[in-house]
Amino acid sequence: MKIIVDAFGGDNAPEEILLGCEEARKELAVDILLVGDKARMEAAAKELELDISHMEILDCGGVLSMEDDPMSVIREKTDSSMAIGLRALAEGRGDAFASAGNSGALVVGATTIVKRIRGVKRVAFAPILPKRTGFFMLNDGGANVDCRPEMLLQFGLMGSEYMKKVMGVEKPRVGLANVGEEAHKGDDLRREAYALLSACREIDFVGNVEARDIPDDACDVVVTDGFTGNMLLKMYEGVALTVMGLVKDVFRKSLKNKMAAGMVYGDMKALKKQIDYNEYGGAPIMGTAKPVFKIHGSAKAATVKNALRLTRDYTQSGFTEEIGRVLKGKKAE
Amino acid sequence: MKIIVDAFGGDNAPEEILLGCEEARKELAVDILLVGDKARMEAAAKELELDISHMEILDCGGVLSMEDDPMSVIREKTDSSMAIGLRALAEGRGDAFASAGNSGALVVGATTIVKRIRGVKRVAFAPILPKRTGFFMLNDGGANVDCRPEMLLQFGLMGSEYMKKVMGVEKPRVGLANVGEEAHKGDDLRREAYALLSACREIDFVGNVEARDIPDDACDVVVTDGFTGNMLLKMYEGVALTVMGLVKDVFRKSLKNKMAAGMVYGDMKALKKQIDYNEYGGAPIMGTAKPVFKIHGSAKAATVKNALRLTRDYTQSGFTEEIGRVLKGKKAE
Repeated sequence: MKIIVDAFGGDNAPEEILLGCEEARKELAVDILLVGDKARMEAAAKELELDISHMEILDCGGVLSMEDDPMSVIREKTDSSMAIGLRALAEGRGDAFASAGNSGALVVGATTIVKRIRGVKRVAFAPILPKRTGFFMLNDGGANVDCRPEMLLQFGLMGSEYMKKVMGVEKPRVGLANVGEEAHKGDDLRREAYALLSACREIDFVGNVEARDIPDDACDVVVTDGFTGNMLLKMYEGVALTVMGLVKDVFRKSLKNKMAAGMVYGDMKALKKQIDYNEYGGAPIMGTAKPVFKIHGSAKAATVKNALRLTRDYTQSGFTEEIGRVLKGKKAE
Repeated sequence: MKIIVDAFGGDNAPEEILLGCEEARKELAVDILLVGDKARMEAAAKELELDISHMEILDCGGVLSMEDDPMSVIREKTDSSMAIGLRALAEGRGDAFASAGNSGALVVGATTIVKRIRGVKRVAFAPILPKRTGFFMLNDGGANVDCRPEMLLQFGLMGSEYMKKVMGVEKPRVGLANVGEEAHKGDDLRREAYALLSACREIDFVGNVEARDIPDDACDVVVTDGFTGNMLLKMYEGVALTVMGLVKDVFRKSLKNKMAAGMVYGDMKALKKQIDYNEYGGAPIMGTAKPVFKIHGSAKAATVKNALRLTRDYTQSGFTEEIGRVLKGKKAE
């Protein structure tokens, strides 16, 4: 299997991308096709004393930055490493594409260049986040600001299938993020989506879930529109970071507290790892004809490697074919 | 000043309500008019060995529960302590009303029975939450699932005025909760609200704020529709509770960890208090012709007292008159 990687996406490109790719190549038995400025990659590798000679390079000069408009991937920045990597995937030069770059551009590019699975209305951005025990998926986590009920149904279907096939969750519970548990709660979008999700035999729909219960263990797939999903995702990150930061402040406050910190060091480190959303490497872009994976923008080498492991699993899982089959079946119903 | 209190609202009624009211009466120099079943209140007081003879009682038999439909406050449950308390406020038998009961019913009842300030389109539910340093307001935190841009403008105006007059924030920064900082981000509602908020001279609008930055210190008033606001509020609560629960688990894990817990006990307790949203007692219902305050449903006596302090400050602040003046001025513009 060959994964095409945007070597110039994210906050730590190209250094951490190169390091993570080389680790992935050795440990995960995948081939890597790096996309980006070859001279700059070679200079960075030299500086890192990293041998990148076992990875292919697709040389191109352009870079799409975090500040660029998402549409630029198909307009002004068609020569960027992201756009060229996506085209390479569409042309079959690799089996999947991963980038730590601009999420909005990746969604636009994946939809336009790689195209959707037949029957999929919109691709979704589906981050995996830790909960009290294990993890859950937020789908859509930000790709589609405006949604229709049928789109939410598909987010539930795709999320459920991904959790089964890629994340190894046997019977994923699908919940609809809403302001109350009763079926009549929320706006028209929620009520109509509730009806569609309830009627869908392919998923285990557990009804509405309130945001308070999501980090605890309300369900495995949280279905939501991309606006709300993005708000939930970022509030989750913000509160987790702020609270852990305040706990850290307590441990630094006095000599006595520093001693206590030493005593719980290992366990606190394990906890930090447990609630670190970076552990899951990023988020699949879901519904594309071929696998596209968003690596965390701030990913360092270890996170890049984690993301590439998930990209590999996503690609091997048969998810794309299965979704195509399910949607075809539902259309025929 | 006399505060009318729903003695049968919330999870711990009437006992904790009675205890909190009596404390408030003594410490805050307010008179209390308790609404609810007099015999049950007297029996509970006897059990608690609490003297409630210095508080007036408005005797009524009905109770509106958390499970009741919000509309029931003006339909089947017009004899409930909440409905009768709201009517007592409308009739001028007290200066403000506070209840730990069903939030939805309180919003419906406040709007229908107490009525809105002239010019206010919708009343809002405006919880105050801790951030890294200090606190922020979420407005609307759940009263209005469907919103128009003008409503969001008013939430910003009312929130800013409340923070100034009641919470003592000199120049409140108002932000619009959105999926990105740029003015064009989000859906139509966000873009139109952004334009209205930017043009409003009465507030210090700092632009769009991302959810990740809200618990840190993005702004003092977070403007949002009630659906998103409720999601943000509950995700905030859920993550804070889950993370603090996991930290507690670490401290209980081994004898060594328990010793460390003892060493940081005082500081961790202070941190818990700092991030406890119960500290702010609840949320004002904003935009009603007379002050209505939602006490946390799970409030115990100390929280009830905190809530009544804020209800008193809200009532004395001149907030209601000021909002009436501002909206009249804006209409004349």
